[in-house]
Amino acid sequence: MGIEAGDLTHIATGAAFLGTGGGGDPYVGRLLAMNAVEQFGMPSIVDADALPDDAQVFTIAMLGVPTVLGEKAACGDEVDLAVKRLEQRLGRRADALVGIEIGGINSLLPVMAAARLGLPLVDADGMGRAFPELQMTTFNVGGLSCTPLAMTDDHLTSVIVDAGDAKSAEDLVRATSVQLGCSVALSSYPMSGRDLKRTAVKGTLTLARGIGQAIAEGRHAGDPVQALVNYLRATPYYSQCRVLFDGKVIDIRRETKLGFSIGHCKLAALDGSVSAMEISFQNEHLIARQDGRVKAVVPDLICLVDRETAEPIPVERVKYGQRLKVIATSAAPIMRTPEALAMFGPQAFGLDEPFVPLEDIDG
Amino acid sequence: MGIEAGDLTHIATGAAFLGTGGGGDPYVGRLLAMNAVEQFGMPSIVDADALPDDAQVFTIAMLGVPTVLGEKAACGDEVDLAVKRLEQRLGRRADALVGIEIGGINSLLPVMAAARLGLPLVDADGMGRAFPELQMTTFNVGGLSCTPLAMTDDHLTSVIVDAGDAKSAEDLVRATSVQLGCSVALSSYPMSGRDLKRTAVKGTLTLARGIGQAIAEGRHAGDPVQALVNYLRATPYYSQCRVLFDGKVIDIRRETKLGFSIGHCKLAALDGSVSAMEISFQNEHLIARQDGRVKAVVPDLICLVDRETAEPIPVERVKYGQRLKVIATSAAPIMRTPEALAMFGPQAFGLDEPFVPLEDIDG
Repeated sequence: MGIEAGDLTHIATGAAFLGTGGGGDPYVGRLLAMNAVEQFGMPSIVDADALPDDAQVFTIAMLGVPTVLGEKAACGDEVDLAVKRLEQRLGRRADALVGIEIGGINSLLPVMAAARLGLPLVDADGMGRAFPELQMTTFNVGGLSCTPLAMTDDHLTSVIVDAGDAKSAEDLVRATSVQLGCSVALSSYPMSGRDLKRTAVKGTLTLARGIGQAIAEGRHAGDPVQALVNYLRATPYYSQCRVLFDGKVIDIRRETKLGFSIGHCKLAALDGSVSAMEISFQNEHLIARQDGRVKAVVPDLICLVDRETAEPIPVERVKYGQRLKVIATSAAPIMRTPEALAMFGPQAFGLDEPFVPLEDIDG
Repeated sequence: MGIEAGDLTHIATGAAFLGTGGGGDPYVGRLLAMNAVEQFGMPSIVDADALPDDAQVFTIAMLGVPTVLGEKAACGDEVDLAVKRLEQRLGRRADALVGIEIGGINSLLPVMAAARLGLPLVDADGMGRAFPELQMTTFNVGGLSCTPLAMTDDHLTSVIVDAGDAKSAEDLVRATSVQLGCSVALSSYPMSGRDLKRTAVKGTLTLARGIGQAIAEGRHAGDPVQALVNYLRATPYYSQCRVLFDGKVIDIRRETKLGFSIGHCKLAALDGSVSAMEISFQNEHLIARQDGRVKAVVPDLICLVDRETAEPIPVERVKYGQRLKVIATSAAPIMRTPEALAMFGPQAFGLDEPFVPLEDIDG
């Protein structure tokens, strides 16, 4: 069933879950998208496999410090300009847009952009979750260049970058984004329809909506966490799914360092045992350890949800005493290849632990 | 008389003088230019007034920390790419290049670029001296936009910037240059021949050559400082000219801060009096005070030369015990208008003193 304007709230909830603690507040993305849809109408959401091979597709996203993104949002003109500048650089119009990540604010920002620009939006993204850095995409793993890219700010300053590799581009974009006020619109990874079909994580807007719907329906039925888990188990990517822990927050340490939110969160078990779970994050949750033993590790998804309402809780809203359930799911198969793990497996985040698929870890 | 390859050494010496302490080591610029001229031939140097009104002219320069520029120099490909990227952005080829400043390395870098690209080089620049920041040009004072601009590094990373004003562009370019290793090629201020004729400081390559020649001839004749002063007095811009002080360095403080070399240098008189002169700088010399009284102030030129050879001494080569003469000259009239002073007068550098033309200060 096609995605419609009425689905934006569910997508926002699903994107908060898939943001695995990071990705910025999808509430802001929802407001931006709703406002644009009211003004310009809902863009058509198209299947990746329906794209012509020679279509020209750009990603569109906001990049910066999540708290600033949440406060400044986007005025829209800078989003249009990012796409326009990239078109100008390539001497070719965009035929469609696609999200770079489905987690957080960047799940719905592309809806805003597509509505404003009258372009179709592809039901796909480059990770099936959120990640903190520009090179951490299946597009990059698949050999696509993230440049030329265009970044713009709310003063309509624009910067076009051509770099040798995605990590150099990330370093440059990060430093420039700080100079531009820690919140920029970014259009990158210009790609053909053929390349998108080969490298994207497909159907993720639909999956985000499904997650949001499952939680909403679960609330009516009385067990939203169970409803969420049931839904995830029926999906193609997140089917390996476990409630890792049921606890309350006894320790939270967050540090803003080098443009990232880095730290850990510790939960004590609610069942009366002495067991504890510790989750480390760099914007997104990276690893969950129970009493020192790894229970889930990136790129598999580790999500915190309110134990009663299943509301996904991002890192910046974790508070002492909160009662949460920790849910882990498998990442999409395309995210677990050796090439993909080299780009965004545990080692890419400085962790010593090897990647072990969730389903191979003792429950 | 046309400028030829044999003039590059004189231009380098003149550019060191006009660099007023900053602008990077023109020796490096000379090597780069000579090498390019050997390979590609000497570019034609054209008078500003001979340019067609509709010619498309770009500035070309290196930007960054002078010490890094001196060590890394430029490989050439990044200089070509900066011009090419700006051409691509504008959808129009460059008809000629012009220097942004005549002081330091950027006096001869344009010779290298013009030789490599087979373009004519205009005998002019945007200040008739050197200044530390991108907005401090007569082009900007004359209302020309410094963007779109293209910056490139030795890995052939390229960044194209469009900004609302030159100061925003400077802030962005400065931060980006740090990320790119503190040394980048920069092609900016795309302008028409008409605008160049209206806003440039004209004939400054010829003047730099004249300064170098006067010093060389003065060495043969036995009094290079006097020969230099005589030459300057006969020029259209630097005709107000004084030897402010004859002394030895008794104090030098340099700090590298925010990408600039900031500090002061103090000289004691050699005539046996207790008089002392203190010169403050931000890359370039800004103000000279004798016993607390202002003797010359930016944008007028304050230059240190060896008291015997008249060799211009840049800030980074000032040493304790050195015997130097301090020479001040007027800036070009176009540099002394109220609009120009707002852009690069004393207040633009945080000084409290008003601008007083050299000739109106008691000797």
